Amino acid sequence: MRERVQTYFEQLQNTICKKLEDVDGKGKFIEDAWQHSESGGGKTHILQNGYVFEKAGVNFSAITSSLSEPLATKLNVASQKIFATGVSLVIHPYSPMIPTTHLNVRFLQLSQGDAFAENGDAWFGGGMDLTPYYLFEEDAKHFHSVLKNVCDKHDSNFYPRFKKWCDEYFFIKHRNEVRGIGGIFFDYLKDDLEKTFSFVQDVGNSFLDAYIPIVKKRKHESYSEHEKEWQLIRRGRYVEFNLVYDRGTLFGLETQGRTESILMSLPPEVKWKYDFSPQKNSREEMLLQVLQNPKEWV
Amino acid sequence: MRERVQTYFEQLQNTICKKLEDVDGKGKFIEDAWQHSESGGGKTHILQNGYVFEKAGVNFSAITSSLSEPLATKLNVASQKIFATGVSLVIHPYSPMIPTTHLNVRFLQLSQGDAFAENGDAWFGGGMDLTPYYLFEEDAKHFHSVLKNVCDKHDSNFYPRFKKWCDEYFFIKHRNEVRGIGGIFFDYLKDDLEKTFSFVQDVGNSFLDAYIPIVKKRKHESYSEHEKEWQLIRRGRYVEFNLVYDRGTLFGLETQGRTESILMSLPPEVKWKYDFSPQKNSREEMLLQVLQNPKEWV
Repeated sequence: MRERVQTYFEQLQNTICKKLEDVDGKGKFIEDAWQHSESGGGKTHILQNGYVFEKAGVNFSAITSSLSEPLATKLNVASQKIFATGVSLVIHPYSPMIPTTHLNVRFLQLSQGDAFAENGDAWFGGGMDLTPYYLFEEDAKHFHSVLKNVCDKHDSNFYPRFKKWCDEYFFIKHRNEVRGIGGIFFDYLKDDLEKTFSFVQDVGNSFLDAYIPIVKKRKHESYSEHEKEWQLIRRGRYVEFNLVYDRGTLFGLETQGRTESILMSLPPEVKWKYDFSPQKNSREEMLLQVLQNPKEWV
Repeated sequence: MRERVQTYFEQLQNTICKKLEDVDGKGKFIEDAWQHSESGGGKTHILQNGYVFEKAGVNFSAITSSLSEPLATKLNVASQKIFATGVSLVIHPYSPMIPTTHLNVRFLQLSQGDAFAENGDAWFGGGMDLTPYYLFEEDAKHFHSVLKNVCDKHDSNFYPRFKKWCDEYFFIKHRNEVRGIGGIFFDYLKDDLEKTFSFVQDVGNSFLDAYIPIVKKRKHESYSEHEKEWQLIRRGRYVEFNLVYDRGTLFGLETQGRTESILMSLPPEVKWKYDFSPQKNSREEMLLQVLQNPKEWV
């Protein structure tokens, strides 16, 4: 299972990067291969200063890490080691009319004592979500429709369950708002690993269908300095979520992961203004209302 | 004690803000008075887009907060409530030749059950530190000399102890570097509250002597776009420290503090570039060497 999953993840990384380059038309991904301090490693693909994308990071990794005692306690497991492989991407376009997006698919396995058994405790997790700066309802509906279709192919409970999980996971408590307009999020899927792997592949393969049509539709729209400024301020919320709450980020930092690959999710440029509020009845305020009260899109 | 401490902290906030306005010559502090969701509140003073200072926040607060069970466990106390009062400031100048600085002085008291006793468990904490973007040895020496003099007046062990504590506290583990060139940091000083209060007042009162001469010396120095860019990238480390590690920030967010007042420490503009390294033997690299190997300045 491990090897098949890894092979699929590596292919997914390449497929996605190739398509993103096509759509960008200028930027090229560079590859950084790295070794984990303990065992395993990864390949970070990064595109900076493209035509459409200001910063796009697509990371593949497959590592084995010792679990420190506090971390094992937090995860509520008695294992000494954890194997983790996955693809994680975050795309920050220049234009505030194009949303930021995030995809993660991952497979984890716990050791029994200090060895990994074929039937050891293992699970899949993942999801994808959209973080717009200006809300286009048709884009939100398109994104969620693609995800609902993928989920419904496997289990009619998946979409409602994973959509809700996503809104809960990406909640920024100290701002009383969610990071974006959501998508799906799932974790600890371990009941039937073969079936779940098939679902996870469909999720990974649907990413380009969910995101690229939105990029193509919005990339020629003009925007003002004021709108760009709003994007920079909103990107601050992205940073706040990732550094204060995101389990993947904190897990990576705690297990001595490769810092640059973990933090490639951070936006290229960000502003923090004291106590900034958008004008009443503005498009900016409309976005906030949706972030404070997540909606059903399909 | 509580009232005398609060009165001093409020005076300190006003003295510091007045002097910062004088030195800036253009920017003015606005005051935001706020109430804590449970009890107490504070006054946030903020100056944005001055002549010298891009963002300067000076916060006074005095709140009583319930301790959640996880937080009480983390603090290793059986109390139900905590009283906290303090002044906290962070100054982000425009020029990369002027360092960012941070000061905090605080007094905390734990309840016995749900009431506060006159002789209940209480302590002082605080410190100040400097985060330069370019290293001027004479500035580092000046800053540390002022702090050493203040400490030596009270106890000859204070400066070495609190200087070391500062370097340890502001260590950014995932970057293997400290946030800046340090200063002093102390916490849980509870042995003789009267004497400690006198020390804390001396620390607060020394802030302007420690920082303002550096601002005056550096504010007319010119700088290049390249140097400004370096500052924006380094500010990213400031964000990483504050959101991932800073106990004050995380304590504030966990106790439902006023988010805008807690996060006013975040820089006005920040950049994250993937895997950026300065050129060999550059002034930027010289700074990194000091951040990776904290020095004795006096």
